[in-house]
Amino acid sequence: MDSNRYLRGWEKLKEIDGEQGEKVIAALSGIAPDFADYLIEFPFGDIYSRPGLDLKARELAVVAALTALGNAAPQLKVHLHGALNVGCSRQEIVEVLMQMAVYAGFPAALNGLFAAREVFEARDAVA
Amino acid sequence: MDSNRYLRGWEKLKEIDGEQGEKVIAALSGIAPDFADYLIEFPFGDIYSRPGLDLKARELAVVAALTALGNAAPQLKVHLHGALNVGCSRQEIVEVLMQMAVYAGFPAALNGLFAAREVFEARDAVA
Amino acid sequence: MDSNRYLRGWEKLKEIDGEQGEKVIAALSGIAPDFADYLIEFPFGDIYSRPGLDLKARELAVVAALTALGNAAPQLKVHLHGALNVGCSRQEIVEVLMQMAVYAGFPAALNGLFAAREVFEARDAVA
Amino acid sequence: MDSNRYLRGWEKLKEIDGEQGEKVIAALSGIAPDFADYLIEFPFGDIYSRPGLDLKARELAVVAALTALGNAAPQLKVHLHGALNVGCSRQEIVEVLMQMAVYAGFPAALNGLFAAREVFEARDAVA
Amino acid sequence: MDSNRYLRGWEKLKEIDGEQGEKVIAALSGIAPDFADYLIEFPFGDIYSRPGLDLKARELAVVAALTALGNAAPQLKVHLHGALNVGCSRQEIVEVLMQMAVYAGFPAALNGLFAAREVFEARDAVA
Amino acid sequence: MDSNRYLRGWEKLKEIDGEQGEKVIAALSGIAPDFADYLIEFPFGDIYSRPGLDLKARELAVVAALTALGNAAPQLKVHLHGALNVGCSRQEIVEVLMQMAVYAGFPAALNGLFAAREVFEARDAVA
Repeated sequence: MDSNRYLRGWEKLKEIDGEQGEKVIAALSGIAPDFADYLIEFPFGDIYSRPGLDLKARELAVVAALTALGNAAPQLKVHLHGALNVGCSRQEIVEVLMQMAVYAGFPAALNGLFAAREVFEARDAVA
Repeated sequence: MDSNRYLRGWEKLKEIDGEQGEKVIAALSGIAPDFADYLIEFPFGDIYSRPGLDLKARELAVVAALTALGNAAPQLKVHLHGALNVGCSRQEIVEVLMQMAVYAGFPAALNGLFAAREVFEARDAVA
Repeated sequence: MDSNRYLRGWEKLKEIDGEQGEKVIAALSGIAPDFADYLIEFPFGDIYSRPGLDLKARELAVVAALTALGNAAPQLKVHLHGALNVGCSRQEIVEVLMQMAVYAGFPAALNGLFAAREVFEARDAVA
Repeated sequence: MDSNRYLRGWEKLKEIDGEQGEKVIAALSGIAPDFADYLIEFPFGDIYSRPGLDLKARELAVVAALTALGNAAPQLKVHLHGALNVGCSRQEIVEVLMQMAVYAGFPAALNGLFAAREVFEARDAVA
Repeated sequence: MDSNRYLRGWEKLKEIDGEQGEKVIAALSGIAPDFADYLIEFPFGDIYSRPGLDLKARELAVVAALTALGNAAPQLKVHLHGALNVGCSRQEIVEVLMQMAVYAGFPAALNGLFAAREVFEARDAVA
Repeated sequence: MDSNRYLRGWEKLKEIDGEQGEKVIAALSGIAPDFADYLIEFPFGDIYSRPGLDLKARELAVVAALTALGNAAPQLKVHLHGALNVGCSRQEIVEVLMQMAVYAGFPAALNGLFAAREVFEARDAVA
């Protein structure tokens, strides 16, 4: 384990995904603890930590990709929280989700929009 | 045909996709001319013309989604041109493509990066 | 909003998807009301309203596609209802679902068949 | 090998896919001859030979599914020929392809339409 | 129905998928009984019964494919049981699931790992 | 860059993918040199270097996944070479490809088999 990548990744994961991300890491401890390390190190320590694209644009791109793929509902919700955590507005997120109707079809966009509704309501309930 | 949507969409298509987009419309004339109209009206007249998210963020999201889906190589190239046309830097595009390794796997990211290399080289050759 | 497309789409949506479709439109009102309009206008006002292919063949094609994609379970159920609403027999639907085993694999076909079982039972319970 | 299934499947494959299908079978002989038998027996001897749905509806469903999946361009072309061979009109096929824009996105529909244009032109050139 | 293929397939299905597989067959009886026969005959009677690759390697390949596709959660669980039933270790399974992060992205791998955790816990609870 | 991971990954990449893998790395130098490092470090330095599953089983799992996904033809060929390089027999590979017909459909399996035919012929031509 490269401790710099790990620490940098852990800070970045907390910044972006907050409590949602920490839960994913904790959930891995019983089944694949090494995978928790890889998840911190490569996506967060290597990729998200790069300069050249701000976190808002990165999160909107991830929301777009997960909505288009349509096979990763739990991770889409984590990244809808993530997009809000790094400063994307609800309107920006909804715009990206609607745009996916063009590229991945209306069902993918609908499922993305309903996931966003859940995430927005969950945050309103906490607030 | 709603002429406002059509005209607004046609202007937006030219702004974003330029010559690449006009070729797609022309190619449809012999097989499905109505579909050319829908393509101008809904994606470009309705969606891309919306306020609330700038064209740069929209194009980065589309590049992300098409790279992740991995089943639409010609359209990915059109939108790599589109992203550059609306002001995204090559670095921003490469960052989005690399990030797709995390969400859709390394093969999807590699195919996106090699498509970008072709697009960048084609534009350098013209310039 | 083009009121002809909207009205034509709304009638078509009610004809095909009935109560299931109206629920989807209602569910969008809190998160993306414009998207409800697009959903009525483009898929239903433009595409389903076209001559050249009857609604039964259209719905069987949609059931096939959503079963093959396998990432849109709620929309598959809406269209299993839709296929029955426009006159497809249960046998025709089951034949299409079984055929998807050849083109998208047995898991996709199984999930389609189990969705159909739920839809058929729900309609039997109401009847 | 169950000779009834095999013979029934072989006749059905020739009826639907004609020369295109025979080429696929021949191409398998050098790499996986048993798979050629399975391809004749299960999809054609078992599934396509079933009553309960006519061949036109089956082929339109397959064209829909392969267009939506977007990862099987050669097989889509075989089945565009197949749909025409069993009596679907070019208009019916184009309608199904356009409808896929709603369920799998515009890029999938565009790639389907351009495949159809190639198939229609190839048949015109022969005629 | 070819009784040899059926009987051979039924024995193979019981050997690999055990009670989980029998439940799937039973669940099909009310909606598509012929499909239950096809499922026994082609995948199990034809494919899994072939020499040339042992059942452990076959099940690891299936676990890999279903994890990568990400659209067949119930079947993935059946095959996680199947892999254990034919002698794969939990470690081997976890290694395959982690490897899918490289080829299909971290979300696909995470969903596979959490499915494995459920399956392992269910077997521990029974034991 | 963690030099241990990098060196370990580079050796592993050469062992598995040989000349094919080195070409991919070289091709990245002009467009995304950092991504070449990540590709060596994470998939090869971290994942393929793990004990717990031998390289033959890993490569068969990757061949299965890429065949099922069907959107990464160049990478599938690299890994068909890779599977042979680490000791898988042609028969084992063909068995895995045929099995994908069950889980991802016949078109995916056919495209995998035709890719294998090309790879086998290319190696025969060199030999």
